[in-house]
Amino acid sequence: MTFEERAKALVSQMTLAEKLSQMVYDAPAIERLGVPAYNWWNECLHGVARAGTATVFPQAIGMAASFDEELLHTVATAVSDEARAKYNQYKSFGHTDIYQGLTFWSPNINIFRDPRWGRGHETYGEDPYLTARMGTAFIRGLQGNGKYRKLDATLKHFAVHSGPEAGRHAFNAVVGEKDLYETYLWAFRYCIEHAKPSAVMGAYNRVNGEPCCASPTLLGDILYGEFGFDGYVVSDCGAICDINNHHKVTANEAESAALAVNNGCQLNCGTAYKWLKTAVALGLIDEETITAAVEQLLTARFRLGQFDTDCEYDAIPYDVVDCEAHRALNRRMAGESIVLLKNDGVLPLKNAKTLAVIGPNADATNVLLGNYNGTPARYATLLRGIQDGTDARVLYARGSDIWESRNDYALNEAVITARQADAVILCLGLNPQMEGEEGDAYNADMSGDRATLDLPRPQRELLETIVAVGKPVILVNVSGSCVDLSFAKEHCAAVLQCFYPGAEGGNALADVLFGKVSPSGRLPVTFYRSADDLPPFEDYSMENRTYKFFKGEAVFPFGHGLTYSDIRENWADERTVTLENRGEYDVNYTVLRFEYIPHKNLCGFKKVFLKAGESKTVPF
Amino acid sequence: MTFEERAKALVSQMTLAEKLSQMVYDAPAIERLGVPAYNWWNECLHGVARAGTATVFPQAIGMAASFDEELLHTVATAVSDEARAKYNQYKSFGHTDIYQGLTFWSPNINIFRDPRWGRGHETYGEDPYLTARMGTAFIRGLQGNGKYRKLDATLKHFAVHSGPEAGRHAFNAVVGEKDLYETYLWAFRYCIEHAKPSAVMGAYNRVNGEPCCASPTLLGDILYGEFGFDGYVVSDCGAICDINNHHKVTANEAESAALAVNNGCQLNCGTAYKWLKTAVALGLIDEETITAAVEQLLTARFRLGQFDTDCEYDAIPYDVVDCEAHRALNRRMAGESIVLLKNDGVLPLKNAKTLAVIGPNADATNVLLGNYNGTPARYATLLRGIQDGTDARVLYARGSDIWESRNDYALNEAVITARQADAVILCLGLNPQMEGEEGDAYNADMSGDRATLDLPRPQRELLETIVAVGKPVILVNVSGSCVDLSFAKEHCAAVLQCFYPGAEGGNALADVLFGKVSPSGRLPVTFYRSADDLPPFEDYSMENRTYKFFKGEAVFPFGHGLTYSDIRENWADERTVTLENRGEYDVNYTVLRFEYIPHKNLCGFKKVFLKAGESKTVPF
Repeated sequence: MTFEERAKALVSQMTLAEKLSQMVYDAPAIERLGVPAYNWWNECLHGVARAGTATVFPQAIGMAASFDEELLHTVATAVSDEARAKYNQYKSFGHTDIYQGLTFWSPNINIFRDPRWGRGHETYGEDPYLTARMGTAFIRGLQGNGKYRKLDATLKHFAVHSGPEAGRHAFNAVVGEKDLYETYLWAFRYCIEHAKPSAVMGAYNRVNGEPCCASPTLLGDILYGEFGFDGYVVSDCGAICDINNHHKVTANEAESAALAVNNGCQLNCGTAYKWLKTAVALGLIDEETITAAVEQLLTARFRLGQFDTDCEYDAIPYDVVDCEAHRALNRRMAGESIVLLKNDGVLPLKNAKTLAVIGPNADATNVLLGNYNGTPARYATLLRGIQDGTDARVLYARGSDIWESRNDYALNEAVITARQADAVILCLGLNPQMEGEEGDAYNADMSGDRATLDLPRPQRELLETIVAVGKPVILVNVSGSCVDLSFAKEHCAAVLQCFYPGAEGGNALADVLFGKVSPSGRLPVTFYRSADDLPPFEDYSMENRTYKFFKGEAVFPFGHGLTYSDIRENWADERTVTLENRGEYDVNYTVLRFEYIPHKNLCGFKKVFLKAGESKTVPF
Repeated sequence: MTFEERAKALVSQMTLAEKLSQMVYDAPAIERLGVPAYNWWNECLHGVARAGTATVFPQAIGMAASFDEELLHTVATAVSDEARAKYNQYKSFGHTDIYQGLTFWSPNINIFRDPRWGRGHETYGEDPYLTARMGTAFIRGLQGNGKYRKLDATLKHFAVHSGPEAGRHAFNAVVGEKDLYETYLWAFRYCIEHAKPSAVMGAYNRVNGEPCCASPTLLGDILYGEFGFDGYVVSDCGAICDINNHHKVTANEAESAALAVNNGCQLNCGTAYKWLKTAVALGLIDEETITAAVEQLLTARFRLGQFDTDCEYDAIPYDVVDCEAHRALNRRMAGESIVLLKNDGVLPLKNAKTLAVIGPNADATNVLLGNYNGTPARYATLLRGIQDGTDARVLYARGSDIWESRNDYALNEAVITARQADAVILCLGLNPQMEGEEGDAYNADMSGDRATLDLPRPQRELLETIVAVGKPVILVNVSGSCVDLSFAKEHCAAVLQCFYPGAEGGNALADVLFGKVSPSGRLPVTFYRSADDLPPFEDYSMENRTYKFFKGEAVFPFGHGLTYSDIRENWADERTVTLENRGEYDVNYTVLRFEYIPHKNLCGFKKVFLKAGESKTVPF
């Protein structure tokens, strides 16, 4: 019997009440039918998250900067190994609670259309093609290629979801057909066609008036229709209640729940589906629709091997969790995620006897972790990585708070260390409490979004003060999104962008700073000068946004990223490039292929290893 | 000219307004007289504090547990080297701001008479003799032995100060003469006689009705009279305003300020002394008294070499700050501060292939730091130290929150790791946010104090759950004060008390766990079973408190501490002991000498190194 047939047979024995009980994320056991309790909520955006110890890989935006699909697939395989290893142990307790199951609400493939969005660092950036390719590699690594599905991946948030966070429960994103298909839906379609994700999560917002989790257009016409999606849809958490409470499209939860299920949202994160019984009684929804939904959900659980004893993943041992091999892989991914934006020749650092490491992000652990993160059993802050990576004397000064008030004594200490150093490594930027999700980040007035692209004022003062000391300054900007780096571009000897780099972040940074690894990352988002150069945050038109349509001059453009070597690209034709490494370093090199239709458009990328002096011809 | 003569000559040129300006902790410059601005507030309880990077040694209570005066003197010398090195740089900016000067408001030699007091971990414990000896060693290390004074040490808080934190601004400690002299003042007198501290800080509270910072009895009769103190007195911060606002002993700030200065409190941390001009005008205080006070303060600045160019400490280089040599010293002190309370033979760990490290304090950094702390440039959490100290496989699970609600998935993860381990190292306890100073700790309802001695509920559940797994459990209790360890004493294979152990805490713990260092610490406080066995917190009588007077049975008594070896003490007479090391380990051993007058009373201690098989005769 197929998984579908077994699910149908099982569901056929359920009462209506039992069926309804299975449509919520924290589904209870049905003991008489041998169905164990199962919590459908788990997370693994960049490593198994919120479930204790796990390898914490770089945040998604950083892995996007690697432009390395193959490596991302390897990372996702490590993640799914850890997830299975944990599940294999957790299930011994007789049930799987939140963050213990096999259903993962990752990846986030929304388009990072505006740098002010606090959750942008959960995404693969501003380009649909890059997002689609990276998303595909990630989903394949999660879901595996076996008799059973290794994990269920969930594409989110469907669709047109990218802030503002403060209004997300009531927001109506107004978007035209061209932007809808070309920007907001493109990666969803691509991933569905190429990676067959088990699930899609509906977004909080409305799109052109229809609440995403109950939208006949988005779910019925497009997702199940045009895209041929054959998985299940889960609501974002509380999104069904929003339909009546905040969108005011329905009168009550019973109507909202019926509308959602009737339009193809089978699973509810939240409480609205407890009203489905009422909805059935009122004739708002048929029992047949309920039955079909539960069949689909149970099919997924059968496909994960939850009702069998021969699943090929049941033997994955706990030893893989945050193991040495995964740490080495993590360090490699973190190294590839770092983007060298400027270098006057100071990097790699060779002969410095004394280094000053300065800045509020130098020894911070939260910037390693990003959000939707696990807990590493071992980590290297930027400072620690630098200390462990060099024989130079390393002087440390925090220099300033991350965003609070100026502090003279901290500033003076920073100056003292800079004066004594041959070079300064200045670690500034944001952190995941300053940019993040509504209710999660601590910049409460903006609910996780940012009002400006400026570095916080105490950090700007620190940057200017340290530059004025006159030593070569290497700025390491740690953030999940674009920060105005125009002052640094002009005044610093080198500038590195280090997206929240994971548990091995400091070691990876040291690898790059001291030349063990040549940087190979490229920006997955445009680095603008000012939010004033952009349309209003609430405006979902792509006009004047991203490298494709932005009319101003970026400080650092999408795709920008330097290497320590001297790589020449010789394009024989549109689909064939010869890469020549004329420099002294063995490097990974990211080659990008753009087309012009008529605007500039990424349509291919490859990560290529080139020894010093080596040439390679790369076909697309 | 002596420092006193130079100070007199300088003060004689000051106007009344100029003199008054110098009696507050943030004294402005008097440019016409060449007096630079000077902020008198600096801290170094266990390392230079609040001034950026510094070696963070174990919290004071932990250093007391070492019972090693000589080592503490070495630590204090390292601290004063770092303080001078920082000052030498900071003064290049033309002024010294808060936490940049040479006047340190350390040590805290109050008697830790009640385990509920949040600030108890700042002290050297419950015994006046231990406190006095450790305080003396510390002050000598701070103040040096040169032509100039290296730093000014400040004994605090004078006197009879030990909570409750919530009421400290209005509290009246009622204490009899015997307890006053035998317990509360004994260490002050000893330190003044043996270490000549530059300053004393008056406490917030009243004693027998008189506010400490303006007490004719405490300051006039006892401190300057009986004890012959010849330094200056500084108020605790805001304590002078408390005299009218909270103690209601005076009507306004002018009266409070006059009362304080007239009774010998020359320096004000706070704002009350801006009313001294009014007080002089009203005839509440004479200008001669003001002049004498300012002369005393300026004498201290001259003695620190602030007006000279030949100070022997001006050449201390910045390199000493958090340097390798200080880290090694720190690791040694941290090792000596760990107390082995129970060992069924599981320690030192020899053949474990897999270790589970569990608990909310295992990878926490705040428990390394205590309070009144600097920022280490490098640190080892307990987990990191264990990982770096063993070749065994180390599995980590946080297990529970430090004190918030129970969390099943965290508990299950802990069980999973314990099941796979040969032994469990369970890192529980408190943290400096749960026990600390009013306004600083986050247990707001208690203002930093504790209501009970119990481990927080989620940790008790974790302890009981892990013990039930059946593997040998080594409990590492990290706290600054006594916690009820009766369950652990009964059910764990080994119990270690690790007071907030400083930046090298994890490495030092690993040294002990894996037998590189034999534990040699002893408890500087009684470990009671319950606060119910004690008198009310507000009762300052020593009746039924501390090892001297407690009538119940302690879980672990004052002075308790095991070693890995087998040391026999053979007392020839009251003042001569022969120590014989019959075991297999080279050890530091702490020998204690008690007298009975008629109650048990510590009157001597020595730290002695004994090789395996070695005997030494130790005279007192």
